[in-house]
Amino acid sequence: MGKILSSPNFSEGKSTQIIEEIVFPARGKDSVKLIDYSSDPDHNRSVVTVIGEPEAVIEVLFEMSRKAVSLINLNNHSGQHPRCGAIDVIPLVPLEGITVEDCVKYAYELGELLARELKLPVYFYGEAALKEERRDLSDVRKGGLEAIKEDIKMGKRLPDIGPLQPHPTAGCVIVGVRDFLVAFNINLATSNLEIAKRIASSIRERGGGIVGLKALGISLVSRGIVQVSMNVTKPFQTPLYRIFELVKMEARRYGVEVESAEIIGPVPLKVIVESLCYYLSLKDFKLEQIVDIHL
Amino acid sequence: MGKILSSPNFSEGKSTQIIEEIVFPARGKDSVKLIDYSSDPDHNRSVVTVIGEPEAVIEVLFEMSRKAVSLINLNNHSGQHPRCGAIDVIPLVPLEGITVEDCVKYAYELGELLARELKLPVYFYGEAALKEERRDLSDVRKGGLEAIKEDIKMGKRLPDIGPLQPHPTAGCVIVGVRDFLVAFNINLATSNLEIAKRIASSIRERGGGIVGLKALGISLVSRGIVQVSMNVTKPFQTPLYRIFELVKMEARRYGVEVESAEIIGPVPLKVIVESLCYYLSLKDFKLEQIVDIHL
Repeated sequence: MGKILSSPNFSEGKSTQIIEEIVFPARGKDSVKLIDYSSDPDHNRSVVTVIGEPEAVIEVLFEMSRKAVSLINLNNHSGQHPRCGAIDVIPLVPLEGITVEDCVKYAYELGELLARELKLPVYFYGEAALKEERRDLSDVRKGGLEAIKEDIKMGKRLPDIGPLQPHPTAGCVIVGVRDFLVAFNINLATSNLEIAKRIASSIRERGGGIVGLKALGISLVSRGIVQVSMNVTKPFQTPLYRIFELVKMEARRYGVEVESAEIIGPVPLKVIVESLCYYLSLKDFKLEQIVDIHL
Repeated sequence: MGKILSSPNFSEGKSTQIIEEIVFPARGKDSVKLIDYSSDPDHNRSVVTVIGEPEAVIEVLFEMSRKAVSLINLNNHSGQHPRCGAIDVIPLVPLEGITVEDCVKYAYELGELLARELKLPVYFYGEAALKEERRDLSDVRKGGLEAIKEDIKMGKRLPDIGPLQPHPTAGCVIVGVRDFLVAFNINLATSNLEIAKRIASSIRERGGGIVGLKALGISLVSRGIVQVSMNVTKPFQTPLYRIFELVKMEARRYGVEVESAEIIGPVPLKVIVESLCYYLSLKDFKLEQIVDIHL
């Protein structure tokens, strides 16, 4: 039996009580492991990461989604991160012993459940995309729920399955299959959002920057600073140290310091080690030297 | 059943054939895993790391030692690293589900085998030390085999068990129990050994430097550079980044650059992550986010 990973994003990052209720179905399961979850009040968003046997993971994702639909009202929602629903996106990632094709089948299975049982319009993205222009998550979500609503009214951007209009409180959901990506945020010691936006647009693929890098400038209002919020979609080709040093260098143009950084959700050990090897000038280091992976 | 780790050091770092013969008994075992081995021609020394169930580890250590005694002749040996025998030191480290006291019993069991079967004088160090002044490996080994020979002739520094004189070709062996340590070497872009020695003596505990840090200056003759060769005996208190930056800073006094660094043998994941968090200014990173430890 193979294993898959999923990091669903839920549009609630403030209420600990709601977040705990959503996460609850992932706890105490035999064939699914809750490996991490984290919330950001400014993004108003939580990322939950589970790993396990595909059927069991699908069940947990569905149960978490059911909770999210019952507890999150998008009409009252505000947050710095673009989103299209109470459950914004559910990516499935094949780990060991499972093919991308199998994963795509599980994505359709989950999508059908969400459409039928929770009355959510569903878009498929990544390897599960049914239309070429829906491969890229940011295209599917462009402008967030508000823009999707307008488009649907005009007969455009119709969901792949499910109701032809957004759920009254829970919006839409995007389900897909993708490779491993690393969510990496760099916080800048300034409240000037324009600076984060400029740096984001200069380093991301669409701006002529690094291949596979997605980046947004976001205000972390509660902390009075701004963030370059990134998805590193080719983490084995684009080491984190390179992105970190690049953002630091660009920030210098504006006389701004890097305040801190965050890795949100899962990250492969190889990615961690690659960056450490750079900073410590390590040569000939092998992952096998790390004791913990043998225990 | 608990697990122990051992990283025996053998006094051969040049002949691949001899090294492979010594390592061979650690291969293909059910209850022992060979996690890493590496050799340095200038140190003329190899470090082999195994993890497994104690009885099985002891057996593998004994078989590797038997090979080392038959293949290494200390009379023909030269190398930059201090050593007292063909098998220089065999440390046992308790991992999970095993106490230090149990580990000490296994050290005595192994020591008795080495004395009885291979006719080696045995010294016990660390937690297995029978004399307080033998707790520290560098005290037991001070001056290497040549100094030990002289001391024994004078009736001093007598072995704890085994023959009262060094084995004619394989010298002595030091067996003990210790906590995890990280062997960390920093190579300097100079051939001036005096610089490595001065830096080593300024950063090590004995020189007024960092608590638990042992350091030697060594010539890497084959590469035309020098090395600050270190044991970080408190790796959870003393992060590698601090040592690296300290050596870099001291090297600047002499106008010398750091050429590269090496971690030899096993290292805990927490130690790796701690240093990366420093360099990437990561906050709130949890080991559980690393996917590989869940697979």
